[in-house]
Amino acid sequence: MNANAIDRLTSLFSRLPGLGKKSAGRLVYHILDTDPHYARALGEELLAFHGAIKRCSTCGSYTETDPCAICSDANREALICVVERAQDVRVIEESKEFRGRFHVLGGVIAPLEGVNPEDLAIGRLIARVRAEKVQEVILAMNPTVEGDTTALYLQKVLKDSGAEITRLASGLPAGGDLEYTDRLTLSRSFRGRIKM
Amino acid sequence: MNANAIDRLTSLFSRLPGLGKKSAGRLVYHILDTDPHYARALGEELLAFHGAIKRCSTCGSYTETDPCAICSDANREALICVVERAQDVRVIEESKEFRGRFHVLGGVIAPLEGVNPEDLAIGRLIARVRAEKVQEVILAMNPTVEGDTTALYLQKVLKDSGAEITRLASGLPAGGDLEYTDRLTLSRSFRGRIKM
Repeated sequence: MNANAIDRLTSLFSRLPGLGKKSAGRLVYHILDTDPHYARALGEELLAFHGAIKRCSTCGSYTETDPCAICSDANREALICVVERAQDVRVIEESKEFRGRFHVLGGVIAPLEGVNPEDLAIGRLIARVRAEKVQEVILAMNPTVEGDTTALYLQKVLKDSGAEITRLASGLPAGGDLEYTDRLTLSRSFRGRIKM
Repeated sequence: MNANAIDRLTSLFSRLPGLGKKSAGRLVYHILDTDPHYARALGEELLAFHGAIKRCSTCGSYTETDPCAICSDANREALICVVERAQDVRVIEESKEFRGRFHVLGGVIAPLEGVNPEDLAIGRLIARVRAEKVQEVILAMNPTVEGDTTALYLQKVLKDSGAEITRLASGLPAGGDLEYTDRLTLSRSFRGRIKM
């Protein structure tokens, strides 16, 4: 079986998170057994993908236009929800619990992994809070040690900004991940958010 | 968030087996956070994929050359291992338990799903057994109801072919899937195969 294309595709798929060699192989054979249109559509989408998506220069989320649709939506409230990663924006948007804007930090403070406050989009957040006359900054970091550290740090640097600083209520399971939170839990966290 | 490329790629990924909307989304964001070379390599591989892979006209397995490397290997023993699907060939090759050739049926007899003997590569198998002077045909269908039915059917149509007909020993867990069998179990099944 001199099927090098199968090996190459299997090896590429197995580099994705959660896909081992066996499950990657299973996907490859599924694609072989599927209409070639599918492989072509997926291939074309992937080739164009990084070119189509950029970061919003205001909030840092992934977008096809800059500024993104949320930042340029005049009907959003003067609230900023601060998240760790761009994909968290989508989770919160889908919950429809929040009608303000976002700010993507690009990570959390983790000195042991070499991530310090200056590596995150914190300066830009402080500038936005003042420039956009933000009434409230909701900290939506994951409830982990690093998330807590980052929230405390942000509360300190934003306390003279004039905005109220709140954090999503506990309700998110400790040590969990915002991306995998169900809507109900997320909804409770928004409603029960506490002043810091 | 007007990120239609993200939606499109998520939707394409979620059509793969075992990938729900959430895990597909996770892959998409992982790809966004990864070096663009990766998306490009995966995209190019997918575009060329169906063009690079064909079916061996002798045994029916996936290959880049026709006949495949196994069918054209003069050092293989005069044995044929009959499998349900092309991906089963790889599983058995990797176990290194078998040094004969293969025959891919393309499924199993399942009248309720409309799969009858004439829909499978059975005529071609009978012709090969005679033409290649095969000493033994090893039936490696999955140990399911349909696999058992198919094995019995093949045993009947091959009983005058001059070849001995055997089947992989039980040892494969009942109702299981050959693709997910570990090497040791597969090895035992080959060694303990029983005459039919």
